[in-house]
Amino acid sequence: MSKVLIVHAHPEPKSLTSALKDFAVETLEAQGHEVQVSDLYGEGWSAVAGWPDFRQPAHPDRLTYAAESGAAFAAGSQAAEIEAEQQKLLWADAVVLNFPLWWFSTPAILKGWIERVFALGFAYGVGAHGGERWGDRYGEGVLSGRRAMIMVTMGGHEAHYSARGVNGALDDVLWPIQHGVLFYPGMEVLPPFVVYQTHRLTEADWPEIAVAYRRRLDGLFTDAPIPFRSQNGGHYDGRQVLKPGLGAGEAGTRIHLAQPGDPAEFAEPPQAVLAKAR
Amino acid sequence: MSKVLIVHAHPEPKSLTSALKDFAVETLEAQGHEVQVSDLYGEGWSAVAGWPDFRQPAHPDRLTYAAESGAAFAAGSQAAEIEAEQQKLLWADAVVLNFPLWWFSTPAILKGWIERVFALGFAYGVGAHGGERWGDRYGEGVLSGRRAMIMVTMGGHEAHYSARGVNGALDDVLWPIQHGVLFYPGMEVLPPFVVYQTHRLTEADWPEIAVAYRRRLDGLFTDAPIPFRSQNGGHYDGRQVLKPGLGAGEAGTRIHLAQPGDPAEFAEPPQAVLAKAR
Repeated sequence: MSKVLIVHAHPEPKSLTSALKDFAVETLEAQGHEVQVSDLYGEGWSAVAGWPDFRQPAHPDRLTYAAESGAAFAAGSQAAEIEAEQQKLLWADAVVLNFPLWWFSTPAILKGWIERVFALGFAYGVGAHGGERWGDRYGEGVLSGRRAMIMVTMGGHEAHYSARGVNGALDDVLWPIQHGVLFYPGMEVLPPFVVYQTHRLTEADWPEIAVAYRRRLDGLFTDAPIPFRSQNGGHYDGRQVLKPGLGAGEAGTRIHLAQPGDPAEFAEPPQAVLAKAR
Repeated sequence: MSKVLIVHAHPEPKSLTSALKDFAVETLEAQGHEVQVSDLYGEGWSAVAGWPDFRQPAHPDRLTYAAESGAAFAAGSQAAEIEAEQQKLLWADAVVLNFPLWWFSTPAILKGWIERVFALGFAYGVGAHGGERWGDRYGEGVLSGRRAMIMVTMGGHEAHYSARGVNGALDDVLWPIQHGVLFYPGMEVLPPFVVYQTHRLTEADWPEIAVAYRRRLDGLFTDAPIPFRSQNGGHYDGRQVLKPGLGAGEAGTRIHLAQPGDPAEFAEPPQAVLAKAR
């Protein structure tokens, strides 16, 4: 049995988004998993990164957030609530970000959780930099070995987020979060679970949504992750630019997915091999 | 002479990002423009969308943010700080979002400004929906006739954000903001002004940055905007999916830019014609 952290960001306990959080807790616990929930609205999480995040400022005359973050992380002088969230991430085998899509991104309160908890030395600025290696990131890092998934609700229609939909493809809309926030510190990222057109749903739609979400929760530790390329897997050159010959036939963010046509020497780590085998 | 609103999100007045905000104010005022600044950290802006945004809740038993937002906007019962920011947007001929890139997006405090100020009826949910028309958005809306630009600082290298860079192309990273936040309510979006590798800069680098930014500020009302396609310009079908034959030769978010190869009947509005003519 495994450990799951759900980071939940919705102001209304009676909302669909909150119901899906509750459903995930029940479903995962019934399977024997341990679950912790960070209910950001419920706990009054502070969304704004700033001086209160550091108990003993290293350079109190001028706030350079990354520098203070790294100093406080190293010295053990981060605000207690930040350390507590980092401990939950280290405890977890899987992390679910549970939120409504607001203006094509996470609610600000969840963005603020990322900014404050993903400290320098914890989620970025980790490992050696130089040559083709630019730190332990994008597939490696402190959170490697963990899985992550977005559970997102939205008012828009699925077609608007399709490959040629006016909002941009959902994978492009979520790119900064899935690749830039979750994969960056090392987590394997599963495809998102999405509920569209939430304002048109009624109680009668719940059973179908619950069945679909249960299927995804059942596969949390077995489904194939998105096959993002590992930064240090040989795909990128010393400038961290994708090497010639890779990503052929694709464009945009999709060039950063391992592809069947890639030369054999760029074979991916196990999760991507698994993805291709399915 | 014109009116410019700068929405500024950085916690440190001595930072490069704040210096660039100050430089923009001085430069624009010297040109005879009027400038207002919303200094979100300086003003203690609340980042968290919730009940305090509505002076007279319409449905106090359950918070559906969009519904409350629309009701409060229509009734004139939004929180005073939200109304004040909306008035600044209506006053402005151009809007500059001035921020450091944190986890591939705006700081949470700026995301919270968007969520709270971009009310239903003001920035979304505007105009008739039905057939090929899905509201006044993406090129039309309450903020049409205005220009917008991102001024963004970041620690990363330019190569990491290049077309094949490991972070994703900068245009893809900024897509949810430039297309989803700024173009959505009708503003024409200029290419961003970007400062990379800020942690390696010294005082000696300032003159070059200032010259480059002054050039962009000089062109705030004349430079060509990004040629995003108008939703209601005939490019998208009734499902808001790009029509066959458009975007040929491109992929990802770039299919949503007007292209030289587009059939003549999809001629763009004046800003795109201008873009092509330059």
